[in-house]
Amino acid sequence: MATPTDPDSTAATVDAINDMVRSEFPGSRNFCHELGPGYAISRLEASGGDLRPGGFISGPTQFGAADAALWFATFVGLGRMESMALTSELSIRFLRPAIGSVLYARADIDIVTRRSVVGTVRLWCDDEVDRPTATAQGTYAIPLPR
Amino acid sequence: MATPTDPDSTAATVDAINDMVRSEFPGSRNFCHELGPGYAISRLEASGGDLRPGGFISGPTQFGAADAALWFATFVGLGRMESMALTSELSIRFLRPAIGSVLYARADIDIVTRRSVVGTVRLWCDDEVDRPTATAQGTYAIPLPR
Amino acid sequence: MATPTDPDSTAATVDAINDMVRSEFPGSRNFCHELGPGYAISRLEASGGDLRPGGFISGPTQFGAADAALWFATFVGLGRMESMALTSELSIRFLRPAIGSVLYARADIDIVTRRSVVGTVRLWCDDEVDRPTATAQGTYAIPLPR
Amino acid sequence: MATPTDPDSTAATVDAINDMVRSEFPGSRNFCHELGPGYAISRLEASGGDLRPGGFISGPTQFGAADAALWFATFVGLGRMESMALTSELSIRFLRPAIGSVLYARADIDIVTRRSVVGTVRLWCDDEVDRPTATAQGTYAIPLPR
Repeated sequence: MATPTDPDSTAATVDAINDMVRSEFPGSRNFCHELGPGYAISRLEASGGDLRPGGFISGPTQFGAADAALWFATFVGLGRMESMALTSELSIRFLRPAIGSVLYARADIDIVTRRSVVGTVRLWCDDEVDRPTATAQGTYAIPLPR
Repeated sequence: MATPTDPDSTAATVDAINDMVRSEFPGSRNFCHELGPGYAISRLEASGGDLRPGGFISGPTQFGAADAALWFATFVGLGRMESMALTSELSIRFLRPAIGSVLYARADIDIVTRRSVVGTVRLWCDDEVDRPTATAQGTYAIPLPR
Repeated sequence: MATPTDPDSTAATVDAINDMVRSEFPGSRNFCHELGPGYAISRLEASGGDLRPGGFISGPTQFGAADAALWFATFVGLGRMESMALTSELSIRFLRPAIGSVLYARADIDIVTRRSVVGTVRLWCDDEVDRPTATAQGTYAIPLPR
Repeated sequence: MATPTDPDSTAATVDAINDMVRSEFPGSRNFCHELGPGYAISRLEASGGDLRPGGFISGPTQFGAADAALWFATFVGLGRMESMALTSELSIRFLRPAIGSVLYARADIDIVTRRSVVGTVRLWCDDEVDRPTATAQGTYAIPLPR
């Protein structure tokens, strides 16, 4: 039975998600920025290791942001944090150079079923929400009951 | 030089697109239903060959609809019909059974560059626009100047 | 309980698969051509409706072939026919014009789990196995026990 | 005209690629491990930041490895290093937990055209080449002449 300290028993809020990211995934730098009905937005402050020559935020860093946003949106879709939800597949298309200091990713849920959550993700830098740097779609698998 | 009868010199309208589909792709049953800024909607009347046991519209039929909608949206993005634009890649996720008599696909453009158009597509049956049967993303390659 | 006439109780052989395709999916023209350890090959005789101007086999027809080959490979992976296995996602990249009278697709299984089968597919025309016309990857979802 | 110090004028060898990675992408930890006709293998030594709870190598780290291997394979396909080749799209499927200290990715080229290179990638840990942790396909765009 879930206890009060089981993060998966907790409703998904921005603070609860970020507490979980910090405690369980200390290496992650993608934090939850905003949640709403059917969507989540992640936020990453770009640092040196994320950058390619010319100051572009790298593809793998953008993939990581898309993956994090879709994970947060999965919590929204399920109505609870489910830290064992795992990416089963994700495809990403890079649209233009990602130049900026903050990388955002917004994941909108396409469907929630018993076994998975599918969503569509758009990424942008700083306040250039209308100039997406990448677009992605993917699937999180929900753990099955034993 | 383009002449008045070259379809690629024609502005992309619903009628112009459907004339081109009928004349150049007589086997296609996906027609243009609606165009707007940055998007296109295709429409297909499902027939026997599209159906799987249980009356579901098949995956390949849905793929074909997504592909057609993205092709029409490519015309919108380019501002002209470009019949030699070709799909370079497309990924599709099936969300729920596609049950209905008419299949719609709406493609929204993510970017238009010199070499390609990228877009995101959602599909639904009849008037159930809020119950997508599939979601897709893909790329059309624009012919390069020789 | 499975009865002798339940196709899903039948071992996956080329003939058993093609009998099932003919009886349950009479609209399908992709037949099983070859099975082996961890792979399946489908075969389609192209007809007028599959062709684009210039005699190219269309993208949706190629998608359908990739989807069929992966479905047959799923039977190989599971060791039984599982007609209710459904495509959950498939991405395809078109490599060169598909010109020929017979379209083949070979699906190699990447993994079989309790919930899904993932595979990689290559397509070619006639005997040009070394000139692939498309490459794809995708996932079939296995029905969960109730 | 290319000068002797232009890395893009250099034939693609393991050493030349790794020199280029170190000088131009000092943040990258994916190095070239092996090259052969039509393929490249990358190698990454996993460190703390790559790991998820349970010691799994993270999805974004695996994406980065797939992306690097496909970049190296692009050099093989082009017959030269082309540091401005950029990922245009990549889709990845995660197959099983990635547990190990070294992550390998092997990219096999599906096609090389004037505008892009398409390839298929498999990833594994340590010496478990037959237990892939992920499978991917993607496209690198080749810079067009001005």
